Amino acid sequence: MTVSPFDHPLLSGLLGDEEAARHFSVEADIAAMLNFERALAEAEAECGVIPRDAEAAIVKALASFRPDTAKLRAGVAKDGVVVPELVRQIRAVVGEPHDAFAHFGATSQDVVDTSLVLRLGRAIDHIGLLLSENIVRLTGLEEEFGGRALMGMTRMQPAISILVADRIASWRAPLKPHQQRLKEQSGRLLVVQFGGAAGTLDKLGDKALAVRGALAARLGLGAAPQWHSQRDALAEFAGWLSLVTGSLGKFGQDVAVMAQAGTDIRLSGGGGSSAMPHKQNPVKAETLVALARFNATQLAGIHQALVHEQERSGAAWTLEWLILPQMVVATAAALGLAAELVGQIESLGR
Amino acid sequence: MTVSPFDHPLLSGLLGDEEAARHFSVEADIAAMLNFERALAEAEAECGVIPRDAEAAIVKALASFRPDTAKLRAGVAKDGVVVPELVRQIRAVVGEPHDAFAHFGATSQDVVDTSLVLRLGRAIDHIGLLLSENIVRLTGLEEEFGGRALMGMTRMQPAISILVADRIASWRAPLKPHQQRLKEQSGRLLVVQFGGAAGTLDKLGDKALAVRGALAARLGLGAAPQWHSQRDALAEFAGWLSLVTGSLGKFGQDVAVMAQAGTDIRLSGGGGSSAMPHKQNPVKAETLVALARFNATQLAGIHQALVHEQERSGAAWTLEWLILPQMVVATAAALGLAAELVGQIESLGR
Amino acid sequence: MTVSPFDHPLLSGLLGDEEAARHFSVEADIAAMLNFERALAEAEAECGVIPRDAEAAIVKALASFRPDTAKLRAGVAKDGVVVPELVRQIRAVVGEPHDAFAHFGATSQDVVDTSLVLRLGRAIDHIGLLLSENIVRLTGLEEEFGGRALMGMTRMQPAISILVADRIASWRAPLKPHQQRLKEQSGRLLVVQFGGAAGTLDKLGDKALAVRGALAARLGLGAAPQWHSQRDALAEFAGWLSLVTGSLGKFGQDVAVMAQAGTDIRLSGGGGSSAMPHKQNPVKAETLVALARFNATQLAGIHQALVHEQERSGAAWTLEWLILPQMVVATAAALGLAAELVGQIESLGR
Amino acid sequence: MTVSPFDHPLLSGLLGDEEAARHFSVEADIAAMLNFERALAEAEAECGVIPRDAEAAIVKALASFRPDTAKLRAGVAKDGVVVPELVRQIRAVVGEPHDAFAHFGATSQDVVDTSLVLRLGRAIDHIGLLLSENIVRLTGLEEEFGGRALMGMTRMQPAISILVADRIASWRAPLKPHQQRLKEQSGRLLVVQFGGAAGTLDKLGDKALAVRGALAARLGLGAAPQWHSQRDALAEFAGWLSLVTGSLGKFGQDVAVMAQAGTDIRLSGGGGSSAMPHKQNPVKAETLVALARFNATQLAGIHQALVHEQERSGAAWTLEWLILPQMVVATAAALGLAAELVGQIESLGR
Repeated sequence: MTVSPFDHPLLSGLLGDEEAARHFSVEADIAAMLNFERALAEAEAECGVIPRDAEAAIVKALASFRPDTAKLRAGVAKDGVVVPELVRQIRAVVGEPHDAFAHFGATSQDVVDTSLVLRLGRAIDHIGLLLSENIVRLTGLEEEFGGRALMGMTRMQPAISILVADRIASWRAPLKPHQQRLKEQSGRLLVVQFGGAAGTLDKLGDKALAVRGALAARLGLGAAPQWHSQRDALAEFAGWLSLVTGSLGKFGQDVAVMAQAGTDIRLSGGGGSSAMPHKQNPVKAETLVALARFNATQLAGIHQALVHEQERSGAAWTLEWLILPQMVVATAAALGLAAELVGQIESLGR
Repeated sequence: MTVSPFDHPLLSGLLGDEEAARHFSVEADIAAMLNFERALAEAEAECGVIPRDAEAAIVKALASFRPDTAKLRAGVAKDGVVVPELVRQIRAVVGEPHDAFAHFGATSQDVVDTSLVLRLGRAIDHIGLLLSENIVRLTGLEEEFGGRALMGMTRMQPAISILVADRIASWRAPLKPHQQRLKEQSGRLLVVQFGGAAGTLDKLGDKALAVRGALAARLGLGAAPQWHSQRDALAEFAGWLSLVTGSLGKFGQDVAVMAQAGTDIRLSGGGGSSAMPHKQNPVKAETLVALARFNATQLAGIHQALVHEQERSGAAWTLEWLILPQMVVATAAALGLAAELVGQIESLGR
Repeated sequence: MTVSPFDHPLLSGLLGDEEAARHFSVEADIAAMLNFERALAEAEAECGVIPRDAEAAIVKALASFRPDTAKLRAGVAKDGVVVPELVRQIRAVVGEPHDAFAHFGATSQDVVDTSLVLRLGRAIDHIGLLLSENIVRLTGLEEEFGGRALMGMTRMQPAISILVADRIASWRAPLKPHQQRLKEQSGRLLVVQFGGAAGTLDKLGDKALAVRGALAARLGLGAAPQWHSQRDALAEFAGWLSLVTGSLGKFGQDVAVMAQAGTDIRLSGGGGSSAMPHKQNPVKAETLVALARFNATQLAGIHQALVHEQERSGAAWTLEWLILPQMVVATAAALGLAAELVGQIESLGR
Repeated sequence: MTVSPFDHPLLSGLLGDEEAARHFSVEADIAAMLNFERALAEAEAECGVIPRDAEAAIVKALASFRPDTAKLRAGVAKDGVVVPELVRQIRAVVGEPHDAFAHFGATSQDVVDTSLVLRLGRAIDHIGLLLSENIVRLTGLEEEFGGRALMGMTRMQPAISILVADRIASWRAPLKPHQQRLKEQSGRLLVVQFGGAAGTLDKLGDKALAVRGALAARLGLGAAPQWHSQRDALAEFAGWLSLVTGSLGKFGQDVAVMAQAGTDIRLSGGGGSSAMPHKQNPVKAETLVALARFNATQLAGIHQALVHEQERSGAAWTLEWLILPQMVVATAAALGLAAELVGQIESLGR
């Protein structure tokens, strides 16, 4: 089943990014959820909430745990979320008398949202590297061709002569603030979600904050009050993804338009046609435009999901799942394509 | 790689539809593209455009053709579309002297768009059946509970007493016009795309229309002028998909709100919670809302793709690929969930 | 206050359409709402629901009625809809003993939605004429330049030579199906909304259908069951508007790209620059693209409003008000600009 | 003409915000554009780019300048932007020999974008105050009712008992990071746009940076390289607006759902119905949801406008005009409604 081009064996050759997509595989999700459960047991033992024996039993059981994925799938179909069945399986493996201490005081959303954040953190590392690479490559392009002349174009008409460096600046300049923005928001995004049944950590009493702090520390995340019904950090991040692809879409559109005029750019490695072998289509440039418009479209859906009623909205939460991973992969794919596209530019200006 | 829940081994248990997704697999796409190439050879031979020997060689080669998918993937990465490499492989199998007659006069977009339409036709058959099933089930629900009373709610406040039949009518009534709409637009949608390099069938001379007619007939599609840069029928269909999921989203929202109030509906098979075993969450109802908002979001992207410059826009076309298949599967999934949700309603009204 | 360019004294010179906007003025809305109230009194008297004396008093009072708009504004702020205060004012003018027969058995949504449909009907007449004009003008353009040659462009690269007629066909061809679509959906859209408090016409007893039929006939609308919580016909119409602007956006984008290349088109009356007097910017062409992307964006919001909970959703309904009128005006403005743009084309092809 | 509810004499009573809308009036726009032209003349004289006599003549002329708005409107229709005609009128008033020094070295986009930023700055001051007021009011609400119990609701079902303070925290908590986000991005947003014909300040030679710095200082804006084709700061701000309305939409949705249940909240001043005088509709709460979904929808359009080709895209720029002002007013209106809604809450929890 390959409904999404990001998952499609053929189309992902153009539109995918394996490293980013890897963090949204079932394997990565389950691994992160098990990390959460292990770190939770450790944190709760550390704070005296569960016995050390229970911690040991849980950690040991998780080390060799392999879920029954057919049952997990059926669990999602019934419960709308994988965690109830996953916890059932974990507890079965832990066995008596310690089983009730697994997942103690936690709820599905704690596991799913923290797993998401853990994996977003890794995807951000990857995306951050790709972003830096684009800055480096565009800087190199400017060094090579920046001093040449180019006809400045405003409103699709020749304006006055500018330098190639001026055009390149409009591609590279936004990438620096994108780095700054990511830095600013990472502290808001990369925090643990831990709230229990309805966000109040009701089962942990006066140890709630201590457990949350210990859990966050073990997972390498920030500690923060539960945010299960406050999705602003996720929506802000989605906005950031679309800012990045939007900037790259401008780059792509410029290259495609220049390639059409044919005088100001020379590209290698353009795409061929089944009807016209002579063609050199600016495929990567066009794809950057497509990915920019894709993420711009998706962003509306993530913001719709901000209307997250009461303590937990199944509808708004599920809507996020349908959209956010694809935005991450689209962004990584766009950054990869943009870096390659810079490499295809053999000449700019005159 | 499972970036999209529609492709996700676990989440597709809730959010997927295997039958609809099947039509967007690589296998289905390649099969439909090969159907196009075979039907094209047959139509061109029938019209005297290519020799009968060439037709026979092509048909025979296609019958046992198995593409090298690694090379297809690389082809997409380079050309932005799978067809140039696919045609190269087909021609290699056909061999001299007939190879040049394969894909004769066609271009990538003819193959990809016609393959899409062929598969949409099958997906529509499936969706049409699901739509009918929902009408039947809702009619049954009305027969069972329609005569009971229900508090009519306007602007989230009790208004006056209505009948359960009145509420059900608001769920079922739009489904009939949806059937009518689909019928009206199918004739515009399910037509062959065949235009050649730039839409003018330049290589077919005065046989162009005859070949197009024969090709369409062999594929069971309507014959129509090429529409490669006119995407209105696809956007209209996407709008139809979102109308359907929107109507089902209203049903889902109503059920979820009723389930919250707890007095007017009794549901079986609700979802459980990892923290609260007593819960019966209206998971399918919430998912209907999520899928409605998903399709509503996506629709904007498909309409952005109407701005399809010149004879073929790589950017707008690729944007469609990123969105349309998911809308189809979301719609089928929503129809399946809605039918199941009707089945979960044990009691309505009082 | 001129937040929207469609209402802006200066920007509406480019982006507005006075005839379409007129139907969304307060005056037009109030006039249509009073039409509803008068026709309702007449229909109810005709069916024996209210006394003939009451009908006469209501019709007479409405003939000279001028609302206190300051109080209407305050009413909207409190009630979220203008009708409660409007009806209060109408009843005060009708006076005893007939006042209670004004608006008898109706509710706010009946008035507001029927007023909307009445005015959409007029806007559609206007838009339909503009659409026809575009077809005529593009046909004229084809007659004048269709036989010339043009370089066909696929994926932003020269493909093969085509005729100017081929390019023009891609602009004109979708307009015919747009006419057909409008015809198909008008019967679903242009129907009265009449349901009373919760959609059941509870106060009209066995005369409900007769009154609805008479009311619809007097207003020149179709009779249909209440649709206050089924917004599919409105969403379908919004989709149609965006299909139209999308097709025109493709025309605009093509003209802008051709104007940039400079060889295949000659335009008169382009826009000037404050810095570069020599420029001839393809302003109308660019604006067509902007309006296409605007409507594509808005369409998502109208489809979100399909999730219209229970018997009446204040949230979903208000969302429609924020979007639909602008889509109508954007479409009329785009059609006007497109017709003018055709007139600016002095030469096409070579 | 009142196509947009934000400009509508009646509907703006609910949906408008006069103070925010004021900054998007023609008067405010022209005043800001004239400020730009005056500050430019002063800065250029200060830097020795234009004569002091010319500065004096321009400043004097601008002090009493009243534009011919009919001609400005016609200018927009022709040029797509008001500035060429505005500058023509200004130069006519300045008269010879100084007229050519007015608007010297600047272009339309410098004037329009800087005017926008100046007015956004004032709108932000207003919105910032409203945001603070909401924090204060929600804090007061928590002080009054925070200690009471409330049934926590997850996935539309009762979960466990929580405190009213827990629910209020989910309304108030995001508002603080919203303040932080605004602070972070203001430095990127509130900067002068000054680039000349194609962004290179070609007419100012080695004084370009000095003039830009002096101009920015006189306008109270940051100095930064021209950003006319880099719209990321505007898109980031639009995202912020939608984050704010999204958080308020969650508040509104919660209140509406609580009002429906009827046990956990008591509201004063609800809206009435024309059919049912007993109703107390949670109008402001529903409107918050509508405005959240409106802004979420619009955000996609602003991000589409990031694909801003070459040195200036008329299409992408015009698209911003159609959307951004409405997002600002929607946000101010939502903040005003939210503060009022808090004031309507007479009781929370039990």
